[in-house]
Amino acid sequence: MDKKLITISREFGSGGRLIGKRLAEKLDIPYYDKELLDRIAEESGFSKEMIVEAEKKAKNSFLYSLASAMGTGEAGPESLSLNERFFLAQFDTIRRIADEGSCVIVGRCADYVLRGMPEATNVFIYAEEADKIKRAVQEYGVPEDSVKKLMKDTDKARANYYSYHTGRKWGDHVNYNLSIDSGYIEIEDIVDLIIKYTDVKLYR
Amino acid sequence: MDKKLITISREFGSGGRLIGKRLAEKLDIPYYDKELLDRIAEESGFSKEMIVEAEKKAKNSFLYSLASAMGTGEAGPESLSLNERFFLAQFDTIRRIADEGSCVIVGRCADYVLRGMPEATNVFIYAEEADKIKRAVQEYGVPEDSVKKLMKDTDKARANYYSYHTGRKWGDHVNYNLSIDSGYIEIEDIVDLIIKYTDVKLYR
Repeated sequence: MDKKLITISREFGSGGRLIGKRLAEKLDIPYYDKELLDRIAEESGFSKEMIVEAEKKAKNSFLYSLASAMGTGEAGPESLSLNERFFLAQFDTIRRIADEGSCVIVGRCADYVLRGMPEATNVFIYAEEADKIKRAVQEYGVPEDSVKKLMKDTDKARANYYSYHTGRKWGDHVNYNLSIDSGYIEIEDIVDLIIKYTDVKLYR
Repeated sequence: MDKKLITISREFGSGGRLIGKRLAEKLDIPYYDKELLDRIAEESGFSKEMIVEAEKKAKNSFLYSLASAMGTGEAGPESLSLNERFFLAQFDTIRRIADEGSCVIVGRCADYVLRGMPEATNVFIYAEEADKIKRAVQEYGVPEDSVKKLMKDTDKARANYYSYHTGRKWGDHVNYNLSIDSGYIEIEDIVDLIIKYTDVKLYR
């Protein structure tokens, strides 16, 4: 089998994580989501606690806006914030994982980190609001009265995080090889469609 | 075979029209692009000359901005501009064609006209600039020194036309079931991928 590096970016409630998991199972290749944290801790010298803390901060869009306004991104390595250093460690780990062989990585700007690699297939999964709410309530168990806010906040944090680290717009089709609305096709069929894409993708 | 209404929206140079043609051939269903004009002329009472003129104006983004600023879109049917009346006739014809059976329609806001129809599959085809330039020069025969400007102007006109008539953003993934970068996969494979999608699409 040719090497397949599949990155999944996804809106909250779109089923993207499940799609990633099923892809990895079906292709029998490693799956990375939370699993990435262990690898980063192992390889970077950061403690897992520090990483979890940095992750939490990364979810706070205000911090990202602030850091962006202060120009943290342009400072040298010595003055980099913890978030920034964590991101670089994550970047290195994603690269290393990709060097090792086929894998599926969900989130974490992996599409950007692996951009330009012939083996990389970057996929964006989205859906209409009503479909995402239904999935979040029924499958993720999110309480109905808080699902809209959680969905909005989560996706806003993802968009800010992505834009801060990559200078690109999260969800913009130009960042992905394939964007799929998960509301009109079964998860297993999306998985098959993505596998079919990776089978015929040109190595260039 | 289940009814398939496939709309293709595409960036200039992405090969979208060819994909639409091959889809129609492979599925043995009617293909509409320029062919739509004959039908509109036939059904609307507009002469073909008037339609061609309206088409030409539709390509001029300044007219669309002006019409938009003057609020033409909100006036009653009596005061509608020729462009507006032409668009409504086109809208009717697309609906009628869709009622008749499976088909492929390229451009003309068909994704918007057929939105919400269970049989409709809306696809957006795009590519990186270098890939689009290469295709436009080699396959469409556009002179190399004018290709960038033609590409930019054409896509800008398409975006303005779409946004004027639909209130939506052209190329935004939310308008489509599937968005595919045509630069990393052969045309025939894209055609197969879209057919596979329509085969498993949920009717809802």
